[in-house]
Amino acid sequence: MATKPSIPKGTRDFSPVEMLRRKYIFTTIEKVFQKYGFLPLETPAMENLETLTGKYGEEGDRLIFRIQERGRTFESGVSKAVESAGTTDLKALASSTRKLTASEALRYDLTVPFARYVVQHQNELVFPFKRYQIQPVWRADQPQKGRYREFYQCDADVIGSKSLLNEVDLCLVILEVFEELGLDVQVQMNSRKLLQGLGELWNVNDRLVEFVMILDKFDKIGNEVVEEYRKAGFSDMVIREVSAFLDLLAEKRGNQANIDDLMRRFKEKGITSGCEGIEELLWIQDGVVNARGVAWENVSTNLALARGLDYYTGAIFEVKALEGTLQSSICGGGRYDDLTGIFGLKNMSGVGISFGADRIYDVLLETGKFPADLGGSTKLLFANFGEVEAMHCLKLLRQVREAGIAAELYPDQVKMAKQFKYADDKGIAYVAIIGENELKQGIVTVKDMKTGEQKAVAQADLIGAIQ
Amino acid sequence: MATKPSIPKGTRDFSPVEMLRRKYIFTTIEKVFQKYGFLPLETPAMENLETLTGKYGEEGDRLIFRIQERGRTFESGVSKAVESAGTTDLKALASSTRKLTASEALRYDLTVPFARYVVQHQNELVFPFKRYQIQPVWRADQPQKGRYREFYQCDADVIGSKSLLNEVDLCLVILEVFEELGLDVQVQMNSRKLLQGLGELWNVNDRLVEFVMILDKFDKIGNEVVEEYRKAGFSDMVIREVSAFLDLLAEKRGNQANIDDLMRRFKEKGITSGCEGIEELLWIQDGVVNARGVAWENVSTNLALARGLDYYTGAIFEVKALEGTLQSSICGGGRYDDLTGIFGLKNMSGVGISFGADRIYDVLLETGKFPADLGGSTKLLFANFGEVEAMHCLKLLRQVREAGIAAELYPDQVKMAKQFKYADDKGIAYVAIIGENELKQGIVTVKDMKTGEQKAVAQADLIGAIQ
Repeated sequence: MATKPSIPKGTRDFSPVEMLRRKYIFTTIEKVFQKYGFLPLETPAMENLETLTGKYGEEGDRLIFRIQERGRTFESGVSKAVESAGTTDLKALASSTRKLTASEALRYDLTVPFARYVVQHQNELVFPFKRYQIQPVWRADQPQKGRYREFYQCDADVIGSKSLLNEVDLCLVILEVFEELGLDVQVQMNSRKLLQGLGELWNVNDRLVEFVMILDKFDKIGNEVVEEYRKAGFSDMVIREVSAFLDLLAEKRGNQANIDDLMRRFKEKGITSGCEGIEELLWIQDGVVNARGVAWENVSTNLALARGLDYYTGAIFEVKALEGTLQSSICGGGRYDDLTGIFGLKNMSGVGISFGADRIYDVLLETGKFPADLGGSTKLLFANFGEVEAMHCLKLLRQVREAGIAAELYPDQVKMAKQFKYADDKGIAYVAIIGENELKQGIVTVKDMKTGEQKAVAQADLIGAIQ
Repeated sequence: MATKPSIPKGTRDFSPVEMLRRKYIFTTIEKVFQKYGFLPLETPAMENLETLTGKYGEEGDRLIFRIQERGRTFESGVSKAVESAGTTDLKALASSTRKLTASEALRYDLTVPFARYVVQHQNELVFPFKRYQIQPVWRADQPQKGRYREFYQCDADVIGSKSLLNEVDLCLVILEVFEELGLDVQVQMNSRKLLQGLGELWNVNDRLVEFVMILDKFDKIGNEVVEEYRKAGFSDMVIREVSAFLDLLAEKRGNQANIDDLMRRFKEKGITSGCEGIEELLWIQDGVVNARGVAWENVSTNLALARGLDYYTGAIFEVKALEGTLQSSICGGGRYDDLTGIFGLKNMSGVGISFGADRIYDVLLETGKFPADLGGSTKLLFANFGEVEAMHCLKLLRQVREAGIAAELYPDQVKMAKQFKYADDKGIAYVAIIGENELKQGIVTVKDMKTGEQKAVAQADLIGAIQ
């Protein structure tokens, strides 16, 4: 291979400095998950193809990476495809080849594998089952800025409990994670029940998903959604109602006015789901305020929030950064009543959240919020002056490492300038110099790479000098 | 889907308790890597197919998981295959379909992606480049006990330095990792240069790989390897020499006698590689002893050690557990002089080691060496007595979590027996009970789940009571 090697489009290498930053994000999230009683779970990168297909809609199905069968299984797949499709219609042949030459695929998200896991292990699990999962997922999407074919998801879910205390707890998890990361955020909430109530009120429940998908665009395109409703052929009555609703929503305190108005109308018309949706939202927000003793500012209702995913049935969340230029959400989630039903286990209500690690990374980088010392880097480099000095340094090196300090000895006897450059490039704080003189006198010259200052200390005092 | 879902053969789900144990192993290894100046790197799960093929031998190539092309690329692949192979010879059709319908594949190990990364980013890297990488790899091997299609590798490598100090440092890493894990091990070393010297001495260098592969079986099948040499058609002289060599090796101190004898004969015949191999081994072992001040016991030479992989050119390592029943190695590695040559970057000598996390897991489990408290688990559960009590508990829960203690509130108001069972099953140490009485009196009843003991403390003293 003469040409420079490369990697598949939409995938990334993570260099050491990127890795240390990513680890900082993952570790912060993981520590909070554990503090809230969530336990780690990992599932295989590959799932059986039938576990994944039919779960993400037609578009999602197309984006699943399939694993090619091997050896004789592949040959027999091609034979069968030729048998069933003939060889004249190449498109039909391709389609049946495709079906018969893959029985496994890479996971598309962590939610479906989690549901599969819960059903498969239902007799061993303690419910409510609280798990977190931090693993990559793969989607054959067209790559673009901020959209990759391989990316990590960080999910936490509680399954097997209908209590709204779980929603409260997940809100607290979100707030604590971003507090730890030092990032100002807004948690927005809505309820699918409330949206269903709207559907009943305006008589659009036969097209509820479509109705809700358009509403979800309000945050991006504002009142233009009214035009979208018109184009989609919703009735004049709906358009009038939506317009008034959105006008109010755009005003300060209009959110609350909408809620009060809706509650009154839901009650009048006996629309239970709508009433329940509002009551649940208020209960969750009360719980969060009660636990944290803070006011409403960081947790608010956004009646236009809908979230695309089909499976939500109760409260839904989305988190926006209040710093930096990123508009899209950096965390989201919600309540789902029938996630495991697709695998034959009914009545398992759950609620979960998912952190967007890549987006959080971008915001922290843009706003300069990564800590200066991410940990994990070498603190002290012993310069190499040749075999005798190096052998002597090995002993000191061991003492320094035993004190818990990350340290290394430059392996080759090269010019000092090169060794200093190595320390500089790697962000090493101190260089310990033990040449012939230092060796004789039992001292070590310590150079502070930031200030350039050098001082000689007794070798026994080295650890103290750099701490 | 009515049948119980399952996962592809050879893959595994890792339950929370398994995950906590695995994290303990990975974290221990990672901390040592970082303390020795290795920095993290991650590469994508998928590599371009051409990056991987031709690197693992014919057998390895067959075990690479290929990603099926999508949509029109797949259709056009099938069309081209039909064009080139015709449709009468199904085997030929299958073979050309296969070639034209995959251009990406899952990584087979971490070494080739690492070499690819170094070549691709050679102008940005600081050499010597010390990186560690802990990621899963995939192989379409026939699954069996202890052999999986998805498993993690934990590698550390230094590339761009020929100094033997790197070998010393990696030996120290190995010893420190297993010290931290509390496991007694034996690090065995040999040198490919020494083996090449043997080849010259016995005149088998035209069949060196074959010769070395047979020798490598000595630890498993003992003197039966002599029979294997005979079957493979090696000359009577070789058989005689090998027999004497192995007889001596089997004796106490025979290893040293062999080394002394070989050194003398290498010198007599001017076999430089053999002399170098022995000198290097002695230098590395001296370095380790010098750094740690320990005697030879845990680091020894094993002249029959060969390690299968083609690319080693200098020192090679293998680690065996001295506790438990596992015979195979739990860590291995060595020096390679031309890993990046396959991607067009010559003269980049490197040395690396790889920990076998699955095997280490098995040994620690068998020998009962996992710590009782792996961390990460909930320490305190607040029982749920209904909405009023729960809302009150939320405040205390926050205080407990702020003190860094992992804690949760049972989300549902169910029978106490069920809540206690949840705590038991999840290994939670304490349950905090705040019912109507406790609420009135401002106290909390704390139950120690291990002893069953209950005591009432003021709510303000809760944290102290469980610490």
